[in-house]
Amino acid sequence: MATFMDIHSGFVGVSAQQLAEAHQRDVDIQNDEGVTYVQAWMDPEAGKVFCLATGPSREAVMRIHERAGHPTPEVYEITVEV
Amino acid sequence: MATFMDIHSGFVGVSAQQLAEAHQRDVDIQNDEGVTYVQAWMDPEAGKVFCLATGPSREAVMRIHERAGHPTPEVYEITVEV
Repeated sequence: MATFMDIHSGFVGVSAQQLAEAHQRDVDIQNDEGVTYVQAWMDPEAGKVFCLATGPSREAVMRIHERAGHPTPEVYEITVEV
Repeated sequence: MATFMDIHSGFVGVSAQQLAEAHQRDVDIQNDEGVTYVQAWMDPEAGKVFCLATGPSREAVMRIHERAGHPTPEVYEITVEV
């Protein structure tokens, strides 16, 4: 199982509740691809969201995000943590 | 105290030990600005590093990273987490 960090843009002015709902849409279907979304962090002023996830591949993480309605091409495989 | 996520680029091929050393240079001086670097994640293939930190301001986080030798303009203030 690998670890991934992804970046979403365009979340300007999104509320905490809206982020929770968007995250829940991922969680609802994540088992289809063996993905687990661990945490998400948002800067609503800049419109950035960062998601930490584990899963079998970058593509699996991307497919879940796409089906949940918030696709992003910016998914990075994390191989080192400190 | 606020929470920040920042992004560094250009860390292509950096080793785990090199990242640990770079992170330690932040930790060594972080108290000067009331900053705490919580965690860092690296994708050495894409050359991306993500740092989660707490501190009094975006500028404080930027100053520590600059003094530690790895400045970045991409520092986002996180006001929502799920």
